Amino acid sequence: MSSARARLSFSRSCRALSGVFADMDAVMAWFSAKDRRDRFTVRRVPLTALDRWIYLQDPLRLGHRSGKFFTIEGIRARTDFGPVPSWDQPIINQPEVGILGLLAREIGGVLHFLMQAKMEPGNVNVLQLSPTVQATRSNYSRVHGGHAPRYLEYFAEPGRARVLLDQLQPEQGARFLYKRNRNMVVQVDHDVPAHEDFCWLTLGQIKSLLARDNIVNMDARTVVSLIPMSDPDESPDYGLLDGVGGFRRDAYLSFCRSDRERHSMDAIMTWLTEGKARHAMQVTPLPLDGLRGWQVTDDAIFHETGLYFSVIGVDVEARTREATRWSQPLLHHQGEGLVGFLCQRQGGTLHFLARGSLEPGNRDGMQIGPTVACSEVAARANRVCAPRFLEHFLDASRGMVRYDAVQSEEGGRFHHFCNRYMIVEIPPGQEPPVPEHYIWLTLGQLWRMARHGHVNIEARNLLACLGAEENPQ
Amino acid sequence: MSSARARLSFSRSCRALSGVFADMDAVMAWFSAKDRRDRFTVRRVPLTALDRWIYLQDPLRLGHRSGKFFTIEGIRARTDFGPVPSWDQPIINQPEVGILGLLAREIGGVLHFLMQAKMEPGNVNVLQLSPTVQATRSNYSRVHGGHAPRYLEYFAEPGRARVLLDQLQPEQGARFLYKRNRNMVVQVDHDVPAHEDFCWLTLGQIKSLLARDNIVNMDARTVVSLIPMSDPDESPDYGLLDGVGGFRRDAYLSFCRSDRERHSMDAIMTWLTEGKARHAMQVTPLPLDGLRGWQVTDDAIFHETGLYFSVIGVDVEARTREATRWSQPLLHHQGEGLVGFLCQRQGGTLHFLARGSLEPGNRDGMQIGPTVACSEVAARANRVCAPRFLEHFLDASRGMVRYDAVQSEEGGRFHHFCNRYMIVEIPPGQEPPVPEHYIWLTLGQLWRMARHGHVNIEARNLLACLGAEENPQ
Repeated sequence: MSSARARLSFSRSCRALSGVFADMDAVMAWFSAKDRRDRFTVRRVPLTALDRWIYLQDPLRLGHRSGKFFTIEGIRARTDFGPVPSWDQPIINQPEVGILGLLAREIGGVLHFLMQAKMEPGNVNVLQLSPTVQATRSNYSRVHGGHAPRYLEYFAEPGRARVLLDQLQPEQGARFLYKRNRNMVVQVDHDVPAHEDFCWLTLGQIKSLLARDNIVNMDARTVVSLIPMSDPDESPDYGLLDGVGGFRRDAYLSFCRSDRERHSMDAIMTWLTEGKARHAMQVTPLPLDGLRGWQVTDDAIFHETGLYFSVIGVDVEARTREATRWSQPLLHHQGEGLVGFLCQRQGGTLHFLARGSLEPGNRDGMQIGPTVACSEVAARANRVCAPRFLEHFLDASRGMVRYDAVQSEEGGRFHHFCNRYMIVEIPPGQEPPVPEHYIWLTLGQLWRMARHGHVNIEARNLLACLGAEENPQ
Repeated sequence: MSSARARLSFSRSCRALSGVFADMDAVMAWFSAKDRRDRFTVRRVPLTALDRWIYLQDPLRLGHRSGKFFTIEGIRARTDFGPVPSWDQPIINQPEVGILGLLAREIGGVLHFLMQAKMEPGNVNVLQLSPTVQATRSNYSRVHGGHAPRYLEYFAEPGRARVLLDQLQPEQGARFLYKRNRNMVVQVDHDVPAHEDFCWLTLGQIKSLLARDNIVNMDARTVVSLIPMSDPDESPDYGLLDGVGGFRRDAYLSFCRSDRERHSMDAIMTWLTEGKARHAMQVTPLPLDGLRGWQVTDDAIFHETGLYFSVIGVDVEARTREATRWSQPLLHHQGEGLVGFLCQRQGGTLHFLARGSLEPGNRDGMQIGPTVACSEVAARANRVCAPRFLEHFLDASRGMVRYDAVQSEEGGRFHHFCNRYMIVEIPPGQEPPVPEHYIWLTLGQLWRMARHGHVNIEARNLLACLGAEENPQ
């Protein structure tokens, strides 16, 4: 299938709120039934009581006895970017590249995606919808072994499915050291039975779920964010816009080829290169007990001020058919951060205000982030030290709220870590001044930059939420 | 100036063999006069006799007493890519991002570029043409100091010139650890006097010099490689092709938008992502005297077999107006390697056979390399272990040689390190089988991938040599 046909299939699926499930009520009924039946217990325990997780020495870090999974290590970050020149923190080190994969199939002429109702120990609500496959490299290098995740073969074995999308994308650079995952969408033409924890949804249904709090998990959101609304090399197909108005129409047009973009791709590369070249982030490994301001105890690792995050332990028990138990550390975050994109019609085309983002876990320096990304503490701070443009998100009367929902970060690593995600459009006309390291981009430009791994996960999460058939308000 | 106008200016300049210098003879006369007048002595000395360069301890490495410039360190590389699973080697560590910048200006309606006749101690022929500026970050962070390179202000001070191109590009991953430079082209509209070591050349004149051996240096070649022949988003402008036939016409058309490409950009990203995800290169730092197979002596660092490369010392004396002397280590390479692109018209469009390349200094795993890149030893090896497709370059009767010249690698780091660069076209019709990790790309696709830093320096060097007005044969 050509790229053009794949994109048309994506567009059609995005408009479909009916598919294998007749409507959103049916989707929610299935999901709620799952949520009732599958019961899990997640119990907080001291780090030193975790089964097979121990403090490793030289340098002091937290890891699994097998050497597998991940370690939690200390780093010192030094940078000439942003207001804080240096800080210490624990960070997750999980060097391998995982697969986040969506299996797609046309059912009744509409592309459907196989989603999994999956429990993660850090989720606020236990079950969320994940992509078909979340696999680590050790999973997929032994795809024929007994413990390979279901459906992995469609992603790991060449020729089993047509690859519609396969990109290496960065994870949270503030919490993961250099981590990236392969984001994949592959399509099959034959019947693939859905296991009882899986269901086939249209893209429109997934987008509709994204308008609700905490249903579509982080891994699913990053893959969905990369599915193009259109072809940014091509002019708009106005046939697709029949009956589509308002913000969705503007978003679609912002994705298409246009000569009304504020900046050329060359100028955007120049802006990003300038940021990468001007500002550096030096990361030095440190033992956990050498981190300034951090306490390392049998119970947990936490900051003396109680701010930022802490590393805690959980025992997990799943009372499903195959009873499973395990222990693991999680990063616990207090409160709810805010992640937001400001957008505005400029010259008739919707533009999004992106900000350069430099974090210790970035593999290649500055990335493209959303307008605002901050913790609850920062969001509540007084005006003097509040992040720029925050007022547009806190005071909704300043613009039109196009998206507003609370979403969870990866529940396999983070404990009850939620952010409020918002997209706010300001009226056309007066444009706010653009500070250093900010730039207005169309959606097509953001997608083009994302394809090459330049767009951070917070910004991608917001992109995923665009294009829902229903108005989220 | 819009991107479109910039590209048109590039195209016109590329066709101009006449400019400030009336013809190529005048260019060569200027260059030869420089070469006679400016005399340099480069004398081989033991490493321990270098002024202010010493063996530093813990771990053992070679560095400058000031902590500036670069260090030569040891690494062990382990990989599941290619025939050699593990090896040790010295590598250059120079973490800062430098600027390689070309200053452009319209003179008589034609875009000219300010080139510098520059001596580098490792050059086989002392003087070569470099870009306007080769600056390290420490240079350009003190642009107003006494020792800033000439013309640096146009690249380092915002607003001094229009930025036509600004990209972060990787250096040789086999010799530099994670090194990247900013490749820039900026344009001014006012008169900028050329210092006596500088001259204004058209792009056509630079391309013509590229058809000769060892005149245009590595730094100039990488910047020139990024200057687009056209806009790969746009259909061909046949007006530009008046009187242009043969291979140059094919190359131009291969750069433009086309629906006859073998692979979509999505498919190319998939191919690259697959390579990045499947194959890893682990790099562990080691002391120089802990490297298997390497000898570290007062005189030099070399491999026991005499193969690969050695680290030697040189004393440099420049008898120019400002007499200067300095000492430094250089990486000496024996023999002449071969770097080649195979190309073929497929479906009427010229495609180039690229190969995935994974080297220890790559910051983000696999990159896109040329069809063949090998040392003289490998090129002379018998057929059994010769690199694939080598025969097309060694036996010219198998295809049409479109480019064939010897070029030097960076003379500030490498001593007499030359490679033979070749582009060979095979007749349309039968297509050679495509082994794993190879892919056919158009020039427009190669340029698009290069813009995001995915194309290695060997491949970019070959791209620079395309589009010369004269047939290089």
